[in-house]
Amino acid sequence: MPETTPEYAVGVDLGGTNLKVALVERTDGIVRQATLPTEAEHGPERVLDRIVEGVQRVVQGFEAHGHVEGIGVGVPGVVSMDRTTVTKPPNIPGWERVRLADHIGPRMAEAGIEVRGPIIAENDANAAALGSAFYGAGVPFDSFIMVTLGTGVGGAIIVDNRLFRGTTGAAGEIGHMTIDYEGPYDRTGVAGALEAYLGQKFLSRHARYQLLARETNLYATSGRDLEHVTPQRVHAAALAGDEAAREVLTWAGHKLGVLLGSIVNLLDIRKVVVGGGVSRAGDFLLDPARDAMKRWTMPSLCEGIEIVQETRGNDVAMLGAARLVFEHIDDAA
Amino acid sequence: MPETTPEYAVGVDLGGTNLKVALVERTDGIVRQATLPTEAEHGPERVLDRIVEGVQRVVQGFEAHGHVEGIGVGVPGVVSMDRTTVTKPPNIPGWERVRLADHIGPRMAEAGIEVRGPIIAENDANAAALGSAFYGAGVPFDSFIMVTLGTGVGGAIIVDNRLFRGTTGAAGEIGHMTIDYEGPYDRTGVAGALEAYLGQKFLSRHARYQLLARETNLYATSGRDLEHVTPQRVHAAALAGDEAAREVLTWAGHKLGVLLGSIVNLLDIRKVVVGGGVSRAGDFLLDPARDAMKRWTMPSLCEGIEIVQETRGNDVAMLGAARLVFEHIDDAA
Repeated sequence: MPETTPEYAVGVDLGGTNLKVALVERTDGIVRQATLPTEAEHGPERVLDRIVEGVQRVVQGFEAHGHVEGIGVGVPGVVSMDRTTVTKPPNIPGWERVRLADHIGPRMAEAGIEVRGPIIAENDANAAALGSAFYGAGVPFDSFIMVTLGTGVGGAIIVDNRLFRGTTGAAGEIGHMTIDYEGPYDRTGVAGALEAYLGQKFLSRHARYQLLARETNLYATSGRDLEHVTPQRVHAAALAGDEAAREVLTWAGHKLGVLLGSIVNLLDIRKVVVGGGVSRAGDFLLDPARDAMKRWTMPSLCEGIEIVQETRGNDVAMLGAARLVFEHIDDAA
Repeated sequence: MPETTPEYAVGVDLGGTNLKVALVERTDGIVRQATLPTEAEHGPERVLDRIVEGVQRVVQGFEAHGHVEGIGVGVPGVVSMDRTTVTKPPNIPGWERVRLADHIGPRMAEAGIEVRGPIIAENDANAAALGSAFYGAGVPFDSFIMVTLGTGVGGAIIVDNRLFRGTTGAAGEIGHMTIDYEGPYDRTGVAGALEAYLGQKFLSRHARYQLLARETNLYATSGRDLEHVTPQRVHAAALAGDEAAREVLTWAGHKLGVLLGSIVNLLDIRKVVVGGGVSRAGDFLLDPARDAMKRWTMPSLCEGIEIVQETRGNDVAMLGAARLVFEHIDDAA
């Protein structure tokens, strides 16, 4: 086997609460990583400082081994088509419109870190899909749909190992697609959107109402407070054999599968990777999703449809952010 | 302006009842055309003969002016990813799996027609979208969704002036996407699929039931027979000022718009071209669709959404079929 020179990039996953940073080698994946509080409440300047600090932590002492090709940053919210500019990320108050490289580049120089290549932004759900495609459960698939079940329901589309980004870079908002035009509203006002069933707040509320009148051990662990009936606790109860909790996850999985079947009909992309906190419910959620997906995919397109769980957890967002840099290098070559 | 050599291809739109054939010049579009009965009831061999006959009609006497680069054929049903093979087109009984070039090529030679380039098959909804993109209402858009409202509800996706074909070439089955997981079944067994509202049979049935108890002039023209309440007659009644008929079209347009909004959220493709017989209802159908589309698109993606009516009618399928040949030439260059 020919020896290849290792290539390194930094991937950043910018969350509202925590910032995750990884030094990523193109083939080997994460070499080292750090998590630090985003401190979003102190405004955008502080957040940008924190990003620099995070990068510093993972590259410190690394300079002897090589150099960093560039930095990719996965951010919640809208990223411009040219991947330079991040507009109003939710959870980061006061952030209007920031050209990431203009702000991070000089700070890197001040901190004495040489970044040879670009600083690239991408929507976090897109970054997660790219990470999955190259380092996660998406590796076996050339094309797949990524669904991220977290506080909200995010999504992304991978076609031939590239992100499908649409006209403005905003493609993949699976959580806001409807499965019932007379259904409940999501937080953007779309009736019957998937997020209005599977978003953490919505799922918790459904669980609470479903379980109020049922025999369940869930209240033993959660109390009767709405906030404490989390998807995580529903999953724990399901694992412990609680039938009512299992029914809640079956209900949620069914909704997911309905939409996935619909998407297969549109895109003829038959593989799905599901990640995010709520996906930890695993087959309690995904088996009903698989059943429904088959029923809402037209029969001639059912062959080969598959839903798998992301194996790398939330690390795929950092990995995908770093992958943006490697992709940039490949495209320029 | 530099003079360019005209380039000609033949486009065929293979319907269950009629076969439409056009000689198409790359820039100018349709040069001449012919329509002849498909004679599908006599089996696939007869259909293939009819295609040759149709091609013969449009190229006859043309040989002096140039040569034909190739033949594109839009067919209902499943076309292989390599565009050579057509499997079980509905409405053509007895047709199992036909490699089009193997059958049409020799017949062309027998008929004394020289075809220099390829014989290419494509799904008819895909062909229509390609025709719209280069010769129809889709010309101003790089990317758009095509919806064909006919007996069934077909669709296709154009991305950067190319067809998005998915994993097996079957992408674009918009008619089988759901807008209500507890809704009525379409003919493939998908609950709440768009076709179960807007397919000709379904829409006619809805109109009949809606109008039974209403004051309407529709029965004056249609009689009380289900078969005679067609979308065309509903449109005529709406034009004549019939409120009940207008409400039926509003109802149908609303369903279309719901799904289109959902698709914008997924693909960030904001332009839609609507064709097919039912689309002749025009703004009676499309204005409610525009309203609903805005409500089911998340607010951050609403800018620039647009639904337009196909201006070239069903000719876009022939035009798109011919376009396959020009695309083939460009890709090979």
